[in-house]
Amino acid sequence: MNKISNNQLERYPLYLKYFKELESEGITLISASVIGNKLGYSQEQVRKDLQAISSIEGKPKKGREIKQLIDDLETFLGYKKIRTAVVMGVGRLGGALMHYPYFEEYGLQIVAGFDKEASKLGLTDEGKTVYSCDDFSSIMKEIKADIAIISVPASQAQRVVNLAIDNGVKGIWNFAPTHIVVPEGIALENVNLSSSLAILTHKLK
Amino acid sequence: MNKISNNQLERYPLYLKYFKELESEGITLISASVIGNKLGYSQEQVRKDLQAISSIEGKPKKGREIKQLIDDLETFLGYKKIRTAVVMGVGRLGGALMHYPYFEEYGLQIVAGFDKEASKLGLTDEGKTVYSCDDFSSIMKEIKADIAIISVPASQAQRVVNLAIDNGVKGIWNFAPTHIVVPEGIALENVNLSSSLAILTHKLK
Repeated sequence: MNKISNNQLERYPLYLKYFKELESEGITLISASVIGNKLGYSQEQVRKDLQAISSIEGKPKKGREIKQLIDDLETFLGYKKIRTAVVMGVGRLGGALMHYPYFEEYGLQIVAGFDKEASKLGLTDEGKTVYSCDDFSSIMKEIKADIAIISVPASQAQRVVNLAIDNGVKGIWNFAPTHIVVPEGIALENVNLSSSLAILTHKLK
Repeated sequence: MNKISNNQLERYPLYLKYFKELESEGITLISASVIGNKLGYSQEQVRKDLQAISSIEGKPKKGREIKQLIDDLETFLGYKKIRTAVVMGVGRLGGALMHYPYFEEYGLQIVAGFDKEASKLGLTDEGKTVYSCDDFSSIMKEIKADIAIISVPASQAQRVVNLAIDNGVKGIWNFAPTHIVVPEGIALENVNLSSSLAILTHKLK
């Protein structure tokens, strides 16, 4: 398999969403040109993207089987394998992430939250538990989460990331607006709202 | 000025954050190599990035003036010009965005929220107002927001985007996990959590 770029990876969930919509409408076949028109990519891009993750070829004048594409995408994206995550910092953003309704669909299960403020501890309205940061190590021994979602203030982010990694987390999904460092072998992905906003305002000019 | 890529744009807020930290520590000069080491970019990348937005050159063996770099970055990123935004869909995620503590620092002022659920309307704990979607057009005549932040469910996103654009919004910041379309001349930036998660889980393999 060729190396998959981040730009490609970003597109796959959008393909999947679109194919599921089509499937729910009873459509069974789709061509690269129709996909491209709908999502705003070139035909060549669509072909290249789908070839990288699927063994099936489009049939001339017929197209590709949507059911198979969905299956290939879900396998590739790892949505069939459940991964567990903890949310570190249950403020407004952390609370939103802890209860984000789409994550289960993406194979991500949020198993617990952690915060240092006593007022935030306990069961949330939706029935998930927020534990004290002081109990992080002992709780993690039981729940063994794969991913830590970081939504603490920027000034605390690196310390919390280190704590998560020390307790066995293999992936860091960082929402704190700061640069953090992880050791070799740990996966890191940043969602930086200031960067996204910079792109938007640049386009606005 | 050369064309600035999205990858470059994503880095600028991280430079700015780092330079402000240095400034608060009383440091006045910095070299491209130190910046690169700290943020994980190559020296050449740092030079290229900073040259694109700043007229000052680094002095051999001294480095660049941090105060000037901060000024250039804030000007370039538009943080000195206040832009106004409305949040459309004040669920957990929309509520978090409406009260996100860093936006004012980035020149973004959230002036109102809109939701269709009666229980969400009125003043929030932090003193911002959530209006009914039914009143969107009349409220927008008064507040004339530049940007609409879209945090409604995926199925409603395109309809809400169209409504925002019909009422004078020039930029769409889309957090709904779906593909949306905007006419020529309207800026669109997507924050797609499923795409970001796909990148993280791919790195985890």
